[in-house]
Amino acid sequence: MFYALDIIGTVAFAISGALTAINKKLDLFGVLTIAFVTAVGGGTLRDVLTGNTPVAWMLSLNHVYAILLGFIVSALFWQKLEKLRVSLFLFDTIGLGVFTMIGIEKGLMSELHPVICIALGTMTACFGGVIRDILCNEIPVLFRKETFYATVCIFGGIVFFALRRTGLNTDIIYACSSAIIIIFRLMAVRFKWYLPVLKAR
Amino acid sequence: MFYALDIIGTVAFAISGALTAINKKLDLFGVLTIAFVTAVGGGTLRDVLTGNTPVAWMLSLNHVYAILLGFIVSALFWQKLEKLRVSLFLFDTIGLGVFTMIGIEKGLMSELHPVICIALGTMTACFGGVIRDILCNEIPVLFRKETFYATVCIFGGIVFFALRRTGLNTDIIYACSSAIIIIFRLMAVRFKWYLPVLKAR
Amino acid sequence: MFYALDIIGTVAFAISGALTAINKKLDLFGVLTIAFVTAVGGGTLRDVLTGNTPVAWMLSLNHVYAILLGFIVSALFWQKLEKLRVSLFLFDTIGLGVFTMIGIEKGLMSELHPVICIALGTMTACFGGVIRDILCNEIPVLFRKETFYATVCIFGGIVFFALRRTGLNTDIIYACSSAIIIIFRLMAVRFKWYLPVLKAR
Repeated sequence: MFYALDIIGTVAFAISGALTAINKKLDLFGVLTIAFVTAVGGGTLRDVLTGNTPVAWMLSLNHVYAILLGFIVSALFWQKLEKLRVSLFLFDTIGLGVFTMIGIEKGLMSELHPVICIALGTMTACFGGVIRDILCNEIPVLFRKETFYATVCIFGGIVFFALRRTGLNTDIIYACSSAIIIIFRLMAVRFKWYLPVLKAR
Repeated sequence: MFYALDIIGTVAFAISGALTAINKKLDLFGVLTIAFVTAVGGGTLRDVLTGNTPVAWMLSLNHVYAILLGFIVSALFWQKLEKLRVSLFLFDTIGLGVFTMIGIEKGLMSELHPVICIALGTMTACFGGVIRDILCNEIPVLFRKETFYATVCIFGGIVFFALRRTGLNTDIIYACSSAIIIIFRLMAVRFKWYLPVLKAR
Repeated sequence: MFYALDIIGTVAFAISGALTAINKKLDLFGVLTIAFVTAVGGGTLRDVLTGNTPVAWMLSLNHVYAILLGFIVSALFWQKLEKLRVSLFLFDTIGLGVFTMIGIEKGLMSELHPVICIALGTMTACFGGVIRDILCNEIPVLFRKETFYATVCIFGGIVFFALRRTGLNTDIIYACSSAIIIIFRLMAVRFKWYLPVLKAR
């Protein structure tokens, strides 16, 4: 179940990367590369920083297939995908919740402090989009207006460690925490929640 | 022989980085740094992702000397190098072929799947140029118009694994595959082969 | 003593990152992230390249607290910090000296060549600022005009290895070398020393 969601999130992230690259008029190889780094960038950074190498996507081809699927779908249907914006946004949000939990889990496996685990979870979920924007030569959207993107990951991580103290079943804790991230994110977008920007008076 | 080509490729990549940086009016330290990352960036990413640390260029000074040579040549003769554009392009293309093979070899040593090995080879050959362009604040040229740069690496990697099934001598396979990359690249530039860009109808 | 200076340097680097991000009108999470990567970016790159993972800041929360302090100070007092420019510059310069020595020490612990150790020290001190500028979508200031920033680190590293041959006490060598970096940097800024840029005649 969790693994299936991981794959769905990977496809969604790959599509988001591919559409950005198509929009920037990159050629097909550029589109494939951006799709790839958007999908695996966060997990790669996490694995490199914690020393879990070779990084995850090198150890089986499932992520590669998921990314190729996202790439092909984008290349064929990019003009129609605009109409599926809502579904894509939902997949992307599922990816956000699942990727955060995967990052936290890997941090726990490396016996790191909860604060560091939450940072790893947030990185796993968000860094793919950051590297996508850097490669496309833009200030990462994450730092400009989509901030609840990262904030919900941090919040979900805090919920995870709070629930963990209750002694609940681990699977239930993972499910609840990712659900909270997903719901919080949907509400943040629906009600246009933003973090403040500091401005000169 | 292979090692000599590695050093030639390193010098060529360092010169390509230095010339880009001089063109961007960076100062001497900036030029040296860009030369350095262009030459070793691909191999560094490969080693970090596969966990072969300390990364290759830290273990002997030969790459450092090769880069210093490329830097000094560029700093002294950059106004004349324009006339040597064809020779430089040839060196750069040799580097492309050799670096791809080195990446594939390292992937095999880490017992990774052929698809991942080809990705590592392509990264080794191409990532230096990507990081050069990011540091100079441009959309990497790789994603915009020089796409056959990466495509020939992937193609060369596929040829390598096809030849490997024939049971030929390993040295011959390496030589053939890099030769194919070099020839394919020369033809791609000569005949102006590009990958398509997706465009709104 | 050395550890206290490390923390002071971390706070100073975090403030420098936060102020840049506020200036770019990033929101609060963007400001925190840029503060974070500016402070730990150099050490992270060093640890990843040498394979000392999980990277240093993951192993205790002291760096996280130092960065949060720098972030809070910046968010509250950013309009007044302009007046403290001289103190901030001093802290930043202390960080430069200390971080260079930490990088060299880690290189020695990995038994790398002095030239590589100096490169690691320079990276530790300078890469945080480079990644700050990349994330804010600018050509790193390091490559454009603040070049003595890196040059003094290299010079301090050479002094370190020269002193090491004399058989002096290690603590004294570290203290002298970082002091030289700090003094050299202050003089470079005071007397406006720059490295040349190559220009067409």
